Amino acid sequence: MKIAGISGSLRKQSTHRGILRAVEKHLNAKGIEYVEIDIADFPLYDQDLKDQGNPDSVQRAHDLLKSADAIVLASPEYNYSVTGVLKNAIDWFSRVENQAFNGKAVAIMGASPGMGTARSQYHLRQILVFLNAYIVNRPEVMIAQASNKFDEQGNLTDERSIEFIGKSLTALTELSEQLNK
Amino acid sequence: MKIAGISGSLRKQSTHRGILRAVEKHLNAKGIEYVEIDIADFPLYDQDLKDQGNPDSVQRAHDLLKSADAIVLASPEYNYSVTGVLKNAIDWFSRVENQAFNGKAVAIMGASPGMGTARSQYHLRQILVFLNAYIVNRPEVMIAQASNKFDEQGNLTDERSIEFIGKSLTALTELSEQLNK
Amino acid sequence: MKIAGISGSLRKQSTHRGILRAVEKHLNAKGIEYVEIDIADFPLYDQDLKDQGNPDSVQRAHDLLKSADAIVLASPEYNYSVTGVLKNAIDWFSRVENQAFNGKAVAIMGASPGMGTARSQYHLRQILVFLNAYIVNRPEVMIAQASNKFDEQGNLTDERSIEFIGKSLTALTELSEQLNK
Amino acid sequence: MKIAGISGSLRKQSTHRGILRAVEKHLNAKGIEYVEIDIADFPLYDQDLKDQGNPDSVQRAHDLLKSADAIVLASPEYNYSVTGVLKNAIDWFSRVENQAFNGKAVAIMGASPGMGTARSQYHLRQILVFLNAYIVNRPEVMIAQASNKFDEQGNLTDERSIEFIGKSLTALTELSEQLNK
Repeated sequence: MKIAGISGSLRKQSTHRGILRAVEKHLNAKGIEYVEIDIADFPLYDQDLKDQGNPDSVQRAHDLLKSADAIVLASPEYNYSVTGVLKNAIDWFSRVENQAFNGKAVAIMGASPGMGTARSQYHLRQILVFLNAYIVNRPEVMIAQASNKFDEQGNLTDERSIEFIGKSLTALTELSEQLNK
Repeated sequence: MKIAGISGSLRKQSTHRGILRAVEKHLNAKGIEYVEIDIADFPLYDQDLKDQGNPDSVQRAHDLLKSADAIVLASPEYNYSVTGVLKNAIDWFSRVENQAFNGKAVAIMGASPGMGTARSQYHLRQILVFLNAYIVNRPEVMIAQASNKFDEQGNLTDERSIEFIGKSLTALTELSEQLNK
Repeated sequence: MKIAGISGSLRKQSTHRGILRAVEKHLNAKGIEYVEIDIADFPLYDQDLKDQGNPDSVQRAHDLLKSADAIVLASPEYNYSVTGVLKNAIDWFSRVENQAFNGKAVAIMGASPGMGTARSQYHLRQILVFLNAYIVNRPEVMIAQASNKFDEQGNLTDERSIEFIGKSLTALTELSEQLNK
Repeated sequence: MKIAGISGSLRKQSTHRGILRAVEKHLNAKGIEYVEIDIADFPLYDQDLKDQGNPDSVQRAHDLLKSADAIVLASPEYNYSVTGVLKNAIDWFSRVENQAFNGKAVAIMGASPGMGTARSQYHLRQILVFLNAYIVNRPEVMIAQASNKFDEQGNLTDERSIEFIGKSLTALTELSEQLNK
């Protein structure tokens, strides 16, 4: 099994990159391969541009995403919804032939100073219906009061949150195996 | 009164640019000033970048948006939600000092081959709660079966839809006047 | 000015009844009339029943609601959405001639052991678009960790929450006045 | 395999009862057992009432629902959301011990004079996250312009819609089998 991660935040010390490092660590310990998908160089989606072919950054990222069995979206909440950065990546991915989310299991994880992205995760779930992905129901990873749970480099230090992420990944691999049977 | 328009699609012949041309025509006939906000050159939002100051394209667009009394969002539906392009612009605008949506009236208008963006407009409404904008309730402009209602250059040719846009703009100016009393 | 309140919970010692008592107390101190709308005796909505005329309990409640200038919805979160009880009342109200929400300002307030009904309030906002009500944007009243903020009879004892409710009511009366100008 | 159906409308000649008759017919032809769950006699949810034990109508319906392997929700759109009637039933079911939606596959089907319940189905999806049900992604059954597709008794007469329902049921049984592996 191989799992891909995408961070909806581009900031170097983003807590969402920190979430993905915790994901990687957990998966490595279980002997599961992890790859991170870079969406920082995607142009803004423009159909005129798409008509000239997929940009290299998009094609490369999509190929890698396609090679994964399941996907983790570390998804911040900006303005009560998913980030434009993540949505822009999804808009590109959705137009690539044989799009990579189709039929796959996805886990959503978020952190915020307030409620832990509760407002935005259901937007992402609605988006993923169109892409025909199936999202893990439990546990929902919403890391609230994040400023107490990450260090200054964005590393997740809260044991309970790390445990939640582990449970979410177990649910993700299980759902992925079920969907592929 | 001055009204600003933003298209969530960057495509040259986008139906959403066509909607904004219909908006402009209607407003001009009423003697109301219209300005269009260009979001095509915004970088992907990155807080590390923001910490260096607002990019010129963002600052210029925001200043223009700020000068308007009310806002029209011509918002396509990509993957059952707002476009990454529009969300990225909103993510930038929301971090500019004295952000321009605050307290303003907004009208949302969309067109699609199917249901006319019904699935996505409520995402945009939730986003705008955070920005403290007030959105026109009626009429909702959802131009369904758009392929029959625009010409190849993306010009809106359907009389009934043009009429709806006019009613929405009347409601927008009325709401704007009420909120500023 | 006259403000009507509806509790989405029927339980005697509901925290949402407690919210409405705090609302009443605040309004009384300001010399604003408050009336509470009873929805406990509404039958389940059935169009066959409606075709025989509005049930007495519905007609009475609607008349009272209609007499108000603005509305407070004390809305719990059940299963990540509004309660069936409140939705059933709204389904009835929406079919009464000259429905009472039309054009009115509404404030939504909720409390829960967890996040304070953050997941459900946007469902209620979407519902109220159809009814052409305008909902206060700020402050959003989401009383989290409610078990520490109400006593056993469901009285709100948390000073900060009481203050938030006051601010929401000020925003409500202001929005109501703007909409009626 | 055994599949249970619930109609969110109580009206005798409801199109949603018609959808369930089409479901039953399809399943019978495939040799799959179908049971319909009656929610018309549920009281409005009230925790004080619940504390006295589950009402008979609720317990009976829940037992039957529990016996099913997968669930079809024929869900109308009232006021841009699920009906109070259906939400009230879900609120009761969610409090019954070993609640019946847990881990099950669900298909959502709706019909309306307009867009076919597009606005409400995502509310139902969010609700079902809490109940840990998994919802079929494709095809989404949204029967638009319903007045042309049902007869006066609410029987579905549109061949294309009947075909969609069949495909949804195939997807439902497949998802159910995957989840139970």
